[in-house]
Amino acid sequence: MKTETTIQGLTASLAPARNTKKMIGFVPTMGNLHEGHLTLVRAAKKICDIVVVSIFVNPIQFGAGEDFDSYPRTLEQDSRLLADVGCDIIFAPSVEQMYGSQPRLTNISVGQITDDLCGKSRPGHFDGVAVVVTKLFNIVQPDYAFFGQKDYQQLAVIRQFVQDLNIPLEVIGVPIVRAEDGLALSSRNGYLSAEQREIAPTIYRLLKQAEQSLQEGKALSEVLANISAQLTQAGFVVDYVEARQPNLQSVEQFDRNLVLFVAAKLGSTRLIDNLEVDFKT
Amino acid sequence: MKTETTIQGLTASLAPARNTKKMIGFVPTMGNLHEGHLTLVRAAKKICDIVVVSIFVNPIQFGAGEDFDSYPRTLEQDSRLLADVGCDIIFAPSVEQMYGSQPRLTNISVGQITDDLCGKSRPGHFDGVAVVVTKLFNIVQPDYAFFGQKDYQQLAVIRQFVQDLNIPLEVIGVPIVRAEDGLALSSRNGYLSAEQREIAPTIYRLLKQAEQSLQEGKALSEVLANISAQLTQAGFVVDYVEARQPNLQSVEQFDRNLVLFVAAKLGSTRLIDNLEVDFKT
Repeated sequence: MKTETTIQGLTASLAPARNTKKMIGFVPTMGNLHEGHLTLVRAAKKICDIVVVSIFVNPIQFGAGEDFDSYPRTLEQDSRLLADVGCDIIFAPSVEQMYGSQPRLTNISVGQITDDLCGKSRPGHFDGVAVVVTKLFNIVQPDYAFFGQKDYQQLAVIRQFVQDLNIPLEVIGVPIVRAEDGLALSSRNGYLSAEQREIAPTIYRLLKQAEQSLQEGKALSEVLANISAQLTQAGFVVDYVEARQPNLQSVEQFDRNLVLFVAAKLGSTRLIDNLEVDFKT
Repeated sequence: MKTETTIQGLTASLAPARNTKKMIGFVPTMGNLHEGHLTLVRAAKKICDIVVVSIFVNPIQFGAGEDFDSYPRTLEQDSRLLADVGCDIIFAPSVEQMYGSQPRLTNISVGQITDDLCGKSRPGHFDGVAVVVTKLFNIVQPDYAFFGQKDYQQLAVIRQFVQDLNIPLEVIGVPIVRAEDGLALSSRNGYLSAEQREIAPTIYRLLKQAEQSLQEGKALSEVLANISAQLTQAGFVVDYVEARQPNLQSVEQFDRNLVLFVAAKLGSTRLIDNLEVDFKT
């Protein structure tokens, strides 16, 4: 496994694979890797010859007051984990390497589907994601790119701009990896106190209960209100509890497949989760 | 020479060249080709093995009330001209082929340098250019892309987003081609009446006079005002007469290299031109 910190170095490292038409898989991350990320790498290894994992904490997708400075940087530990799952190349550029010394004037925005859910409480976040992911796609030029479904809205945004801009690669969504108690794995779980960590799985428990209630015929609005109320009671500060169609278009009732979305804070830690609920006719 | 109308067809046509690492050159156009376009193709032929010319009148870069519907479509004539200069592949997609049937939600905007000059009177124009050129770059995946310096601001915008988004190609700017009387070649010159066509070269004549005046030490503001006054007197409706640094940053006086920009209407036809003026210390 090689680690490259410059675009030039990465390009040189990838040249033999590219020249021999090897399938290149790409897993963009912000590091502080957990089993969810490693699952993405394993999925990539299955269908690609060469897997590149980028580790880059992207400043422009963090808002004022968010955790850019404190976001955990754990490159050594990440490298060991990635070597174990067969990652071929780590791309770990500096902010300077990614954004250069000249001011960036270009922005990419995806309309409609970034207006609500996480987009509402994190203005500019998805623009920052779209810009950095487009840059990384152009640098790595992979055949396949892998993203976790935990960041469901992010995945939808990426699928959208890849399609809209004819970016020549396939986006693969990989199911959420959960702890045994159901908590969706996230680098931000590391911020939780022991007590908060006990409470955190409530989100998933309530999502599963909600799925059950919907299948039993309870009204969608009631089910959502119930999740919200129970989260508050458990000590969360709810950001949103929403249902959407899988393409993020709005949905009024449970008459088709939908996705339940939760974002809520425990102390200063913001957790998100989602659950796909299939409509059985 | 092949003509492809679908992305799939183009990709298939380009596969042999791509597989054998041939240098691919790309000249994006809106068709209705003239000697200016053909000069771009010749420049491409000089340094590339395969030259692709796209012909696509891009709806999203035209504003309300602009000439999208009446913009001349002359594919047969264009094909003959392109065959003569050695173009290898024409890519002439439909609007449906380029934009699909799903709504496009993604926008690319380049800040600052699109705020004035043509950006001021054509809101959204450069966003439309950035989106379609990015799409075409992703479809053709060229090594080099060629643009005329007549659309100087457009060229600067393209250079900017190519750099900001790490698009893996080199942008080549090609000098303006002029008629014998100095008029910058443009598809829109075809809109001019015989009488207007006589007046049109006034723009270039005034730009050359201005260059002379600047070299003789006349104040920049005075020189610009003079161009504007003389254009009005000649029957133009002036949109702007401006000076900028070559990177489009503002400039107060002639103490460095600069570019003079003119946009003016003759009847309903909007003409643009520019002239680089070197500062000799």
